[in-house]
Amino acid sequence: MGSTWGNQLKISIYGESHGKAIGVVIDGFPAGFRPDMNFISREMKRRAPGTSKLTTSRKEEDLPELLSGFYDGITTGAPICITIYNQDMHSKDYEGLRTVPRPGHSDYTGQLRYRGYNDIRGGGHFSGRLTAPLVFAGALCKDFLKQSRKITIGSHLYQVGSIADLPFDPTSVKAAQLEKLQGETVPLLDETLLPQIIEQVDSARMELDSLGGIVECAIIGAGEGIGSPMFQNVESRIASLLYGVPAVKGIEFGLGFDFAGKKGSEVNDCFMLQEDQKIGTKTNYNGGILGGITTGMPILFKTVFKPTPSISRKQDTLNIKTGLEENLEIHGRHDPCIALRAPVVVEAAAAVAMMDLYLEAYGYDAG
Amino acid sequence: MGSTWGNQLKISIYGESHGKAIGVVIDGFPAGFRPDMNFISREMKRRAPGTSKLTTSRKEEDLPELLSGFYDGITTGAPICITIYNQDMHSKDYEGLRTVPRPGHSDYTGQLRYRGYNDIRGGGHFSGRLTAPLVFAGALCKDFLKQSRKITIGSHLYQVGSIADLPFDPTSVKAAQLEKLQGETVPLLDETLLPQIIEQVDSARMELDSLGGIVECAIIGAGEGIGSPMFQNVESRIASLLYGVPAVKGIEFGLGFDFAGKKGSEVNDCFMLQEDQKIGTKTNYNGGILGGITTGMPILFKTVFKPTPSISRKQDTLNIKTGLEENLEIHGRHDPCIALRAPVVVEAAAAVAMMDLYLEAYGYDAG
Amino acid sequence: MGSTWGNQLKISIYGESHGKAIGVVIDGFPAGFRPDMNFISREMKRRAPGTSKLTTSRKEEDLPELLSGFYDGITTGAPICITIYNQDMHSKDYEGLRTVPRPGHSDYTGQLRYRGYNDIRGGGHFSGRLTAPLVFAGALCKDFLKQSRKITIGSHLYQVGSIADLPFDPTSVKAAQLEKLQGETVPLLDETLLPQIIEQVDSARMELDSLGGIVECAIIGAGEGIGSPMFQNVESRIASLLYGVPAVKGIEFGLGFDFAGKKGSEVNDCFMLQEDQKIGTKTNYNGGILGGITTGMPILFKTVFKPTPSISRKQDTLNIKTGLEENLEIHGRHDPCIALRAPVVVEAAAAVAMMDLYLEAYGYDAG
Amino acid sequence: MGSTWGNQLKISIYGESHGKAIGVVIDGFPAGFRPDMNFISREMKRRAPGTSKLTTSRKEEDLPELLSGFYDGITTGAPICITIYNQDMHSKDYEGLRTVPRPGHSDYTGQLRYRGYNDIRGGGHFSGRLTAPLVFAGALCKDFLKQSRKITIGSHLYQVGSIADLPFDPTSVKAAQLEKLQGETVPLLDETLLPQIIEQVDSARMELDSLGGIVECAIIGAGEGIGSPMFQNVESRIASLLYGVPAVKGIEFGLGFDFAGKKGSEVNDCFMLQEDQKIGTKTNYNGGILGGITTGMPILFKTVFKPTPSISRKQDTLNIKTGLEENLEIHGRHDPCIALRAPVVVEAAAAVAMMDLYLEAYGYDAG
Repeated sequence: MGSTWGNQLKISIYGESHGKAIGVVIDGFPAGFRPDMNFISREMKRRAPGTSKLTTSRKEEDLPELLSGFYDGITTGAPICITIYNQDMHSKDYEGLRTVPRPGHSDYTGQLRYRGYNDIRGGGHFSGRLTAPLVFAGALCKDFLKQSRKITIGSHLYQVGSIADLPFDPTSVKAAQLEKLQGETVPLLDETLLPQIIEQVDSARMELDSLGGIVECAIIGAGEGIGSPMFQNVESRIASLLYGVPAVKGIEFGLGFDFAGKKGSEVNDCFMLQEDQKIGTKTNYNGGILGGITTGMPILFKTVFKPTPSISRKQDTLNIKTGLEENLEIHGRHDPCIALRAPVVVEAAAAVAMMDLYLEAYGYDAG
Repeated sequence: MGSTWGNQLKISIYGESHGKAIGVVIDGFPAGFRPDMNFISREMKRRAPGTSKLTTSRKEEDLPELLSGFYDGITTGAPICITIYNQDMHSKDYEGLRTVPRPGHSDYTGQLRYRGYNDIRGGGHFSGRLTAPLVFAGALCKDFLKQSRKITIGSHLYQVGSIADLPFDPTSVKAAQLEKLQGETVPLLDETLLPQIIEQVDSARMELDSLGGIVECAIIGAGEGIGSPMFQNVESRIASLLYGVPAVKGIEFGLGFDFAGKKGSEVNDCFMLQEDQKIGTKTNYNGGILGGITTGMPILFKTVFKPTPSISRKQDTLNIKTGLEENLEIHGRHDPCIALRAPVVVEAAAAVAMMDLYLEAYGYDAG
Repeated sequence: MGSTWGNQLKISIYGESHGKAIGVVIDGFPAGFRPDMNFISREMKRRAPGTSKLTTSRKEEDLPELLSGFYDGITTGAPICITIYNQDMHSKDYEGLRTVPRPGHSDYTGQLRYRGYNDIRGGGHFSGRLTAPLVFAGALCKDFLKQSRKITIGSHLYQVGSIADLPFDPTSVKAAQLEKLQGETVPLLDETLLPQIIEQVDSARMELDSLGGIVECAIIGAGEGIGSPMFQNVESRIASLLYGVPAVKGIEFGLGFDFAGKKGSEVNDCFMLQEDQKIGTKTNYNGGILGGITTGMPILFKTVFKPTPSISRKQDTLNIKTGLEENLEIHGRHDPCIALRAPVVVEAAAAVAMMDLYLEAYGYDAG
Repeated sequence: MGSTWGNQLKISIYGESHGKAIGVVIDGFPAGFRPDMNFISREMKRRAPGTSKLTTSRKEEDLPELLSGFYDGITTGAPICITIYNQDMHSKDYEGLRTVPRPGHSDYTGQLRYRGYNDIRGGGHFSGRLTAPLVFAGALCKDFLKQSRKITIGSHLYQVGSIADLPFDPTSVKAAQLEKLQGETVPLLDETLLPQIIEQVDSARMELDSLGGIVECAIIGAGEGIGSPMFQNVESRIASLLYGVPAVKGIEFGLGFDFAGKKGSEVNDCFMLQEDQKIGTKTNYNGGILGGITTGMPILFKTVFKPTPSISRKQDTLNIKTGLEENLEIHGRHDPCIALRAPVVVEAAAAVAMMDLYLEAYGYDAG
């Protein structure tokens, strides 16, 4: 039951990294929507591996086969199912991980949970590869939110290893800016950082090591008054979905952890009339959410991705059968910095969560 | 539907800050458990206002009346309902907030969401007061987890304003340590910080201002193999509940946002045999969770609380009827630092989330 | 988790027959609705015991105390909680049922499920008394559906023991007719049957026995296009809630079980234009639902209630401790025909289910 | 959200009758189970069309392709996804149904619900063909329940048109009997009725008409104490799933609607010690369920299927564009009596519902 999420829009993700296929069933998507399949393909490619030396060398086209829910390219209202067949698998790389689990990875806990029956190859159902169907679902929702409500979702790499990008301006994120970021391999607000980042990632790869990173995501045009107090608030919904993405270890909204050192008088967002005569706030420390409900200002949140735990460098671990410590060298193909492929995944989670909130607010046609 | 949470254990929280009563229905709690009512009272008191000059002067005894689910002090398996009647209400303080909403508060968004019909007095259903029934549910679960599974949950103030406490030692948190912290008004690992913290909070109060803070929570004895990949993982479950607590703006597990600047080789937790011959990890950067599933090491997470938005200092805001900016002085009674009362709330959320996960894992008796 | 129901509108029912109180939390009810409290009181009274010699002599006023979710008599959008304190309890009547369980009752299975810790007095949480909070929730929803969508829900006793009433005319049920039925103690389409029914029930009572019955319910004005295929269809939603009512053992929609002996050509409801130029069907064998979705014709379904299992007549049962058969004489106060008090309960379940479907269809204001 | 069902075991059914494929994702199935794929194939064949002249002439092998959740033939604990590609489609048969909807079918309501965007060919997502993935899920659960808990589920045609079979003996249904019934094309307790039934069905087919029917299902070995009061009771769970099956219009447990005419003294099931010294009841009018919880006696319920609404005989209907009545002749291929293929579907729904209840009771390994 762990891989199904949602209230009015339910996604049910299936598949294993080296199994036959991965995919998703999306139940509750409104009828009558013609998605821009080129946009969806571009989103899938943003996440796909093998596109540059910055990512794993595993090559997957990640072409989703549409099995249901569409007729003549338009959604029918019936559940949408897609399948992505796995292609470039080197499963021999994963033998032995049951007895000598990789540090920082799900090998050990996955076995405990499934009594040794989990498909451990490539991480099985725990693999980052399972974000591909999430990106499909997210792209569909993003396109719907864009076309029907003029909502735009975009993100950038707020931090890669030790290098920090500029933050979004919390009160004036623009749709064009977010769409430009969507088109970039390494989305940055300060593009001059790109060479440094490439160098740092490459250097980590050469050292058989990996880097962490932070993605900052913005949702604009989301409108005001969406969400509920307590457990269906916007933060709760986004976080509950986003923590399902492998390697995510923290999520913060608006000023997030920096609120701790601030005084109320410094960070209370004062209300004001905006140029368009709509009510807004002068500052946006709360990231567009008050009381769990959207204010109409940009929704802003950051998500941290830990360094890829699969590194090729020799590591200590335990042989859980012998009880002896062993050295482990992992020979699979891995991303030196998983965060680099994460922006589109974060955006997808945001899009699916917002879509569910809109269907709750406006009904099953999101009318 | 926003105030109901859970799968096998469902909590449904009701009430408004200045309404007749607040409370919770807890559905799915195992039969045959005799809770330590003294422990539950102590937990309620940890959260209750009016206990020191560090908190709001509103005085509420917060005595829960047990309406159902108990027979001779033992749980019957039927839903547990408690009611806490509100007592010390000064509702006149809240007139006018509909047209002149408080910055940083839910006044504005609550009205949008409920088309002006929400009970705005004291924040209504958005009030931090609604954490009282959550603390009751949490205390019950905490007691059950302690008695039946030797699980201990505790927390301390990792940061108050600009003052930082020591962190938990991620590999060796002890039950006695957590229980000691539960007994303290201002739980700190470095107790010498207490005078500074009191001074800083008092100073904020005198300046009619407020402070933020961070709570670090630990769960020990949770056992290994609990949780699921993707959306029912431990992080997702805890976060989805905890974001329901007012003023929470960020949650991170283990090293959290500090993972961004680390290399995989620095933060991969190597497996080892512990003294008791159980499998553990040498370090615990992942906060006791890998692949969304418990490793058996201490579960560790931090939660940031923004400064109380209700401050008495004069603030700018908007009169949403006239469209003109106005000064606002709030005369209610407020906590200068809501984080000070938050540890027991964070622990409660952790306890309820873990209880739900245990019922999923072991069945409805958590046998 | 068994006593919580709903998607967008969630009800969480609590309490035990001889405990302190019973009640319900209703989460997700739209803000801004002023219920007709007289109507709700009348509905509560329709269900309440002690109103005539046809029902149990237990006297309960069933006055719900509103704890939350209302301000000046208008819903705030926050969860609505009501409490009904139990008053007229004779708990000594129930001693001994743990070892000598009543046939046809939940005494035995309740003990198994809760390992002997269930509150067995008066059936505890299994009691028909728990339908009182359901009737409250139903009355609120019924009133909302009436005021905002002109939907009317009513029912009559289709069968009591061996006496059968006339059925509704499936194509022309009228609001006035349903409202008239709501006002009657024993709602019948053929009122001339009343003396016979009274005599039969009285005779069963005198014989220390009980009778079964069938309630036929109609929902009109429900509009067309509500519901979904598969598991959220109208039949599924109503049935999943209604089977939660004690003593219900069967539910059928439209022609129901009589479909078995019919040919398609006899029971296919042909489409036609109605007088008001809206599309309808000439016949309505399908009870207003095709493919799980409303057609706009009256929704019709029947619910069977088994004879009250608690009868005062001497019965055989087993002493589960000694393993010996024993005679059992039950001395509590019981309804000779629980079906007589069931119409308002059936209507309540229908109202809550329809309300949830409307919130799904139109969003959380059911706009 | 209508096609997803379950708590601990979630099924998410996708596909349309004449779309590319149909299938299901099963989330929460325990790891470590090796299903008998021959058994599953046999179950799929029991439902498959084209196997005899008694059913539609559409030929579908219904071979499920396993996309995930298995490794070396053993479940991994990850979601199980299967796909069945549609093969023998004659989609031209369905043109025109948007304007001239078939009586008794979902053509009209489906269009309302999905604003005309539903895939109307073959009924789309409303088609009885969608029971194929349910049968797969059911077969898997049935096999698990058999292997791990010795639970057997079987059914027979209690009624076909005007011909009634014998009922199960409520107190002594046997596993061998149920397994024998599973092996028969037309499962009957009184096999001498077969020629009559064939003749009657054939005669309906020749008359371009269709017949209704009733399936009686039994679950034995289910153990005692499973289920919960109120909305998670066994009846509620089974009914909520089973009403998702097209053409189902009524479900009753035990004596069902016949309870109405009975007295309590006639139908109270007295407790007794059985031969194996386990507690049982002398009679089993309640169909193995008291208070919503299993007694340990056979669980018995009946499900009525209306006559296939798609009949080839000329029918009146409405052209919803012109507003004029028209004659309609349907030329597709249809079952003269859908109930004949229903037993395995009813058993599947029972198996999935029971499996979910067991996972709730015993935890996610159903240990």
